[in-house]
Amino acid sequence: MPDRKKAKDRWRPEIDQIEKDPMFGAENWEEAESAMQKRTADLALEKGQIHRRDVRYLFAGDLLGQLIATSFGTVDLEIPLFGLYGACSTMGEALSLGAMCIDAGHADRVLAMASSHYATAEKQFRFPLSYGNQRAPSAAWTVTGCGAVALSSRRPAGTCVQIVGVTTGRMIDPGVKDSMNMGAAMAPAAWDTIQQNFLDLGVDESNYDRIVTGDLGEIGRKILLDFAKEKGHDLSGRHLDCGLEIYDRQKQDVHNGGSGCGCSAVTLCAMILPRMRDGGWKRVLFLPTGALLSGMSYNEGRSIPGIAHAVVLERCDE
Amino acid sequence: MPDRKKAKDRWRPEIDQIEKDPMFGAENWEEAESAMQKRTADLALEKGQIHRRDVRYLFAGDLLGQLIATSFGTVDLEIPLFGLYGACSTMGEALSLGAMCIDAGHADRVLAMASSHYATAEKQFRFPLSYGNQRAPSAAWTVTGCGAVALSSRRPAGTCVQIVGVTTGRMIDPGVKDSMNMGAAMAPAAWDTIQQNFLDLGVDESNYDRIVTGDLGEIGRKILLDFAKEKGHDLSGRHLDCGLEIYDRQKQDVHNGGSGCGCSAVTLCAMILPRMRDGGWKRVLFLPTGALLSGMSYNEGRSIPGIAHAVVLERCDE
Repeated sequence: MPDRKKAKDRWRPEIDQIEKDPMFGAENWEEAESAMQKRTADLALEKGQIHRRDVRYLFAGDLLGQLIATSFGTVDLEIPLFGLYGACSTMGEALSLGAMCIDAGHADRVLAMASSHYATAEKQFRFPLSYGNQRAPSAAWTVTGCGAVALSSRRPAGTCVQIVGVTTGRMIDPGVKDSMNMGAAMAPAAWDTIQQNFLDLGVDESNYDRIVTGDLGEIGRKILLDFAKEKGHDLSGRHLDCGLEIYDRQKQDVHNGGSGCGCSAVTLCAMILPRMRDGGWKRVLFLPTGALLSGMSYNEGRSIPGIAHAVVLERCDE
Repeated sequence: MPDRKKAKDRWRPEIDQIEKDPMFGAENWEEAESAMQKRTADLALEKGQIHRRDVRYLFAGDLLGQLIATSFGTVDLEIPLFGLYGACSTMGEALSLGAMCIDAGHADRVLAMASSHYATAEKQFRFPLSYGNQRAPSAAWTVTGCGAVALSSRRPAGTCVQIVGVTTGRMIDPGVKDSMNMGAAMAPAAWDTIQQNFLDLGVDESNYDRIVTGDLGEIGRKILLDFAKEKGHDLSGRHLDCGLEIYDRQKQDVHNGGSGCGCSAVTLCAMILPRMRDGGWKRVLFLPTGALLSGMSYNEGRSIPGIAHAVVLERCDE
């Protein structure tokens, strides 16, 4: 991610690369996001010591119309591609399908990846940056970032993190029409998925060391905690939101918090997984949240349905 | 689909509903496409005698930025959604992931669906209809149509069609930059997937009664057959293209043929599956083809990578 909006110092060392040029050396914002995807995928393969030919499937997506950041970013990898769109929940969707695919024996290794870029997202959903529009206090700051995870059927030596469950989200439309208040649009979907997860697995919040949403921000977090409280669940001590973790909101002018596919993808790779491997957290419910709007649906006066795709992450010590 | 571009008479009776109003009673084109998705999903459930609560996952997509036709069309179903984008190959992607999911025991029943609408696609990728632009002879006509397939782990009584194999496409970029010649952009990807299928399964074209591509049209078909011939494969007698089947090109002014996610989805449901169930074809390689461009990538001078996702369909008589 570029240096303009720095991740909090305490987990910044875990970010593999911090790029100072938001253009990533490219000629336009969309190519910049593609370059970021390419670099992230290459790095994930390098860190996992995997040759691209040994990756059976790539599950990937971004926020742009027709997923052009993904298609131009990953074409050279020549890995069979399942293009996914779940708005900012895409990393949850990619991890879910990737894990299901490996569990079924349909693949040995897959790559799950999602990205977002502040400038491409503003241009796509709101206004081009050069317009210099005002941001509402409830607006989120789309993270310029990309995260990729190599999933494998083979357990690596030492401590690792496994995906042991999946709760796929359904769309929930609370009728919010303000594209500068997406936390409110997504919070009911987040609670729906959490509730479904509790029901399906016969557990409650005590089953998890942390319940981590994608990009609800300050407003969405409050709504989520209220919804949970109404149903007798106190999530306050266990809930984290990637959008509130990734930036230092005291020093950085990001209003409601970070957002975008890249927000949860980067937080997963650079904060959640390291914290689990270090022995801090044993079991985490990770649920990226998505707001299903487009510039066109917004201009046509439609509401913004939300969706949240959860995976259960568990540390495996033996 | 609306009456303006009628499907050929010979298989038109198999189309469940033909809608004369291209607006589907809605206020704008995007809502029209959503209404078509809703109606198609409802009909698929009704025909399969399945309650929506018994569908574990919905694998669906369309051509519009951020999949708004799908999200607004299916929000009321309340089925956990995996949003997919594979351009016009989306039906192949949905069937592949749906079948893999069922094969793995992760679901009993899923719904795979894809749609396109002529007016939304022109507006999204080229010009709004009211602009009245000229269409190049190599341009395809985006099908206003939607197809949905209910996949089940349980074999129904009597003859049925099974998905017995999947060959997931990788992107191939032949460098074509003309969004009015997508057949040429997609043909190399179609051949790549067919060749991979032959290699993976140790078969050749004689394994299939038909090899059916999505929307290569006249130009793309010629390129595909030439590519195959160069490698010693004669596909001419077995190859069909949904884009060439869905319209009567002698009477209808569709230039290179039909295109869009809806093209292969409708042809699958209204021509291929009936022809297989009637005993005509035993084994079909069905591979919807996609051109990975957006209005933005086109305006930025990017090329159009192609992709094709194949499923092996087999009639099961016992």
